[in-house]
Order: sequence, then structure tokens, then C-alpha cells
Amino acid sequence: MDKPKAHKTALHEVDGIDQPESISKASIEHVTRLRKKQPTAQELVNGILNGDKTALSRAITLVESTNPSHLEKANDVINQCLPHADKSVRIGITGVPGVGKSTFIEAFGKHLTSLGRKVAVLAVDPSSSLSHGSILGDKTRMEELVKDENAYIRPSASGDTLGGVARKTREAIILCEACGFDTIIIETVGVGQSETAVHSMVDFFLLLKIAGAGDELQGIKRGIMEMADLIVINKADGDNIKKAKLAKTEFNRALHLFPPKNSGWQPKVTTCSAITHDGVADVWETINEYLKLTQENGFFGFRRSEQNSYWLTETINEQLKNNFYTREDIAALLEQNKKAVQNNELSPFAAAQVLLEKYFK
Amino acid sequence: MDKPKAHKTALHEVDGIDQPESISKASIEHVTRLRKKQPTAQELVNGILNGDKTALSRAITLVESTNPSHLEKANDVINQCLPHADKSVRIGITGVPGVGKSTFIEAFGKHLTSLGRKVAVLAVDPSSSLSHGSILGDKTRMEELVKDENAYIRPSASGDTLGGVARKTREAIILCEACGFDTIIIETVGVGQSETAVHSMVDFFLLLKIAGAGDELQGIKRGIMEMADLIVINKADGDNIKKAKLAKTEFNRALHLFPPKNSGWQPKVTTCSAITHDGVADVWETINEYLKLTQENGFFGFRRSEQNSYWLTETINEQLKNNFYTREDIAALLEQNKKAVQNNELSPFAAAQVLLEKYFK
Repeated sequence: MDKPKAHKTALHEVDGIDQPESISKASIEHVTRLRKKQPTAQELVNGILNGDKTALSRAITLVESTNPSHLEKANDVINQCLPHADKSVRIGITGVPGVGKSTFIEAFGKHLTSLGRKVAVLAVDPSSSLSHGSILGDKTRMEELVKDENAYIRPSASGDTLGGVARKTREAIILCEACGFDTIIIETVGVGQSETAVHSMVDFFLLLKIAGAGDELQGIKRGIMEMADLIVINKADGDNIKKAKLAKTEFNRALHLFPPKNSGWQPKVTTCSAITHDGVADVWETINEYLKLTQENGFFGFRRSEQNSYWLTETINEQLKNNFYTREDIAALLEQNKKAVQNNELSPFAAAQVLLEKYFK
Repeated sequence: MDKPKAHKTALHEVDGIDQPESISKASIEHVTRLRKKQPTAQELVNGILNGDKTALSRAITLVESTNPSHLEKANDVINQCLPHADKSVRIGITGVPGVGKSTFIEAFGKHLTSLGRKVAVLAVDPSSSLSHGSILGDKTRMEELVKDENAYIRPSASGDTLGGVARKTREAIILCEACGFDTIIIETVGVGQSETAVHSMVDFFLLLKIAGAGDELQGIKRGIMEMADLIVINKADGDNIKKAKLAKTEFNRALHLFPPKNSGWQPKVTTCSAITHDGVADVWETINEYLKLTQENGFFGFRRSEQNSYWLTETINEQLKNNFYTREDIAALLEQNKKAVQNNELSPFAAAQVLLEKYFK
């Protein structure tokens, strides 16, 4: 920005009449220079390790950048933060829109900070780049928590693919942990494959539900209930308390339909009100029971190690596919072959072989 | 084979003493020459289209071959058969060992052939290369069906990966259909990821269960119950009838926990005895109800088209991974990087990047 833009305001209605510059060129240049000064990787790492939330935010922005030239610096920051990470509880929270995720996380987060914990709230929402942030986008929805010194709230990274968004969130966890946050909450919206991604980066998975009019068990996405270590029936207040208790019984019965978990943990169901705060403390106690069990039986460390391997492989596989499907000649031939397959002129396997031969040549 | 092998028999116990040749060299050469004469692709296709089961078996063997030189011929046969395929009902059947899959398929298959249908039974069992065919390996387990002129039974292809086994089975379906089989049954053992693969190649998915002692709903693998279009409680005979009816009620309740299917079909539960044949005809009637519904609402064709795209993409993705992970220098570096990731010295993403840079260079 070399000179101030001519803003369209009520003071500037008449075209053809020049307005005096209201901001001096010198001060604009000064501000621009300050803004452009990017901290080095080392400065970011130092800031993060000192618990500086501004440095944390900038590092996460760096990690989220799609500019290839930022990749090396981002990896440098992450690798320097790694030895200081891994010392937290990572909790995944999901639930369909309307279930009260934000109010629950606010009440839960405040409870945790009141116990002296440092809470970071991240989100995985691949739709946010289209909807401009459907979850956590509006920070004012957690207005108490956002003001809390011991809390850090970050909206979902944007991105075209779930894999990309999830990868960035997984890296943000490392940065938050290195910054001293000992409780990481990953929020996701319960309408898609993002739960699987979140499940693969957390220690504990919490499914938020509300009691409805007899349809408590409707609309549960494939596999999500099976992932849950805890189902919390939210909005259990006022006239809803009775319904919530009924729902609890139904969910408890449903949970017993699933095979035992590798963690040795029997998933639980509790009720909770983010308004009256009834049951909020119980959620944290349940998580602590889970941590005690899985740290004693070794599942906690085993799972984290498995998750690391999973993310290594996932990243590789995603890039391999990306390299293939974005090549222009391949994309054109793929379209053509897909049509031949649809018309039963070519088997899917023969079509694949033709494409692979072209690719590897 | 240039000369007969010295077999280790009771007649050949003493080492050092040569045995006279009991088969003349000339006749061995004659047999070998006959054996080696491989039919051309065109001969195989003609045989298949004429309903010749021997040609079908040879073509499936060709498709299953891991010899790269067979690939082109196999693709030729499949592509010539394609226009004659796609006109069948494809039924997936799963259930844990002991549930009576073979006896059920025998009774069900015989019922179908008695109605004038032609039934092919294939299997997807990636473990069979280790266990030497745990399902369908012993054809005598379906001794009635195997003798039936209108039935064709083929054990699982062997292979190291589920993807490979599934791909071969998917191609065998095409060959069976071109050979005039109008009902394809794909059997799989209910202990792993193979159900997902089978689900992606069939029109209708049937889960076989038995009534136990109150533990009807235990041991159900993730997602398998959600895939089922029909749960059949087998061995509902004698003292078991009451238990089976109870189990039916429990399963019916459990099925209602899942969200409605895209097919518009509400999954059903029936009881059946492969011994008394009670309920076997009902299974086929239920499948017909399903076919009527999904052919009317267009889901049937939509699903097959989706499955074709799925297999095209799956084959590509599998080959891309295969090419990466089998490269020796990559495999060595991967081992090294995995260790660094486990020790928190390297993030999974940085480790992946190092590997990808090496690969694409």
C-alpha cells in the first residue's frame, strides 16, 4: 500500500473533487514496515515456549499457510516445539448443530481453568472455508472463555480437504502444548467424516447429544457412537431433565450393543446443563477416570504412538494421491475413462491400469 | 518338468538305489504339451459366453494370476465380457465362523436353482493364503450345491492384501455374469475389514447370526450391522426356535438405532434354519422386495455406478501406495523416520515430507 485508498464514505460523494490525505504517507509506511516484519522461526519458538499467545497464533497461521515457501519454516517451528509437546489431555467433542457445543465448551472450559488448567480449543470443520466458519468462527459465542487468560480459542483452519484441515489441526495441537496448554479440546461438527479424523488425534472422545421427543437415537452417524468414550446429554435443565434421564437410559442400552473397546474402558452416559452447570464437573471426573485407567494399562501411550504412525502414513498417502490427481493430463484421461467405465465399455481395473501406465511413464 | 520327479513314497525308501521310471518320457511330454496349451483370450470369452464353466474357471485363474504377463490378456477377457455382465443380483453374505454360512449358502443356493436361477458363489477371504482357504476352501462343505449344474462355487482368491483379493473377486463377478449366472453370492468371514470391501461390490448385504445365550448383540464389528440390509438368525430349529425369536426382537430394536439408509430400505430381521429349510424362501422374497424398491427408486443403478467409480479410484490409490512403499530406499528411510517420530524427534508431517521429497526426486 503506497498511498491511502480513497474510501467511499459520505464525506466523499462527489467524484472529481480530490480529498486531502487524512493519513500521512510517512506513518503508513511506518505501519506497513512493522506489519511486514515476520518473526523468525526461533523467535516464534521462544515466544511459544514462554507461553506467548500472540506467538502461538502467528505460528499456527504459519502452519496453516498454503504458501509452499512457508512449509520449511513451519516444520522448523513444529520440530523445535515437539520435545515440549505431548504432555496434555486431548479431548474430542462432537455433536450435531443445535446440541449446544459452544455453550458446553464454554462451561466445561471455565470449569477447567477454575481448577488451574490451561485450555486450548481448536476446531476441525472442513466446511468452514465455504460457510466462512460455521463453528468457532464467531468467538463471541464463548465470550467468557475467550476473555480467560488461561484459555486459547482458535477457529478451524480452512481448506478444501478434510485431510488438509485435520493435518493443520494436528500440528496446532503440538504448538498449543508447547505453549503450556495442558488440555486441548478439539471441536468438530457431527455431520461427516471429520469425527474419524478428530478421533485419530485425541485421547478421549465425547459425543454431545440432547434429549428429544422420543427420537434420541435418530440421526446418529455411522460409527460415531462407537467412537464415543462418553455421551453427554446436554440441556438437561428445567422441563428437559426427565427427558434427558430417559435418553440416558436409552443410550446406555445402545452402548452395550457395541463390542468392548481396546482401551478397556466401558463408555459412559451422563447428563449435563451448560446453563445450570449441573454435571459439568462430572464430565471432567469421568475423563480423569479414563486417563487413570488407560495410563495404568498402557493404552494411553500406545494410542498416541499409533496415532503418530497413522498421521505419518496418512500424510504420505494424501500427497501421493494429490500428485496423481492434480496432474492435468491424468485428470483429463481420468474423466474420459470414468465415462467408459460408466458405459460398461471398460472395467474399473483396466481403466485404472491405463491411467497408472501413463502416470509412471 | 523334463523328467518325472522322484516322489517320496513307501516304494522309494532306500536312498542310493535308483528306481525304474514308471511313466514313459514320451507320455509325460505329451501330457505337458497338452497342459501348456493355453486358450486364447477369444477362446476364453467364447467359452464363457456359451456358459462353459471350465472356461470360466480358467479365466478366473488368469485374472487371479500374479504374473504381470497375464495382465493384458486378463484385461482383454474382462473387457470383452463386460457388455454381457451387470445383469445379475449381487448378494454379500457375512457372519462369524460357526454361524453356519456354508450350510445356509447351500440351502439358499439350492432354493434359488430350484427356482431356475443360476447361482455363482465367490468368496473374499484375505486370510486364506495363510490358512489355505478357511472359507469355501473345502467345497465338500456344500456338497449338494457343488454338484448342481446351475451352480458354480469358487474359493477365495489368495493374496497378501485385502485390496488385491477384493479386486480379483470384483473381476470374477463380471466373468460369472457373462457366463450366465444371474445370482452372485459373495461370502466373507465376519472378522475384519473385508465386509467393507464386499459391501462395495454387492447390491444387497446379508448378515448371518445365531441366537446365543443372551449375548446376541455381542461381538458385532464396527459398522457391519449398519451395512446389513437383512439380518438372518440361523439355526432357528429345535430348542433354538425360542431363542432365535428373542434375538430377532433384540436385533430389530438395535437396527432402529441407525439412521435411515440412502436406499430407502428399512433393514429387516428374519429367522431361518438351513436344516429344516424354514425361512430360506423368505430370505429370497425379502431380497426381491429390496430389488423392487431400489430398482423403482433408481438406487440400484446409482449404487452400481458409484461402486464402479469407487473401484477405479481404489485401484489407482492402491497402486500409488504400492509403488511408494515397496521402493527399497523409501522403505529403509521410512523405518528410520518412524523411529524418530516415536521418539518425538520429528513430527509425523515433517517425516512424511522428507520421504516424499526423496520419492519424487
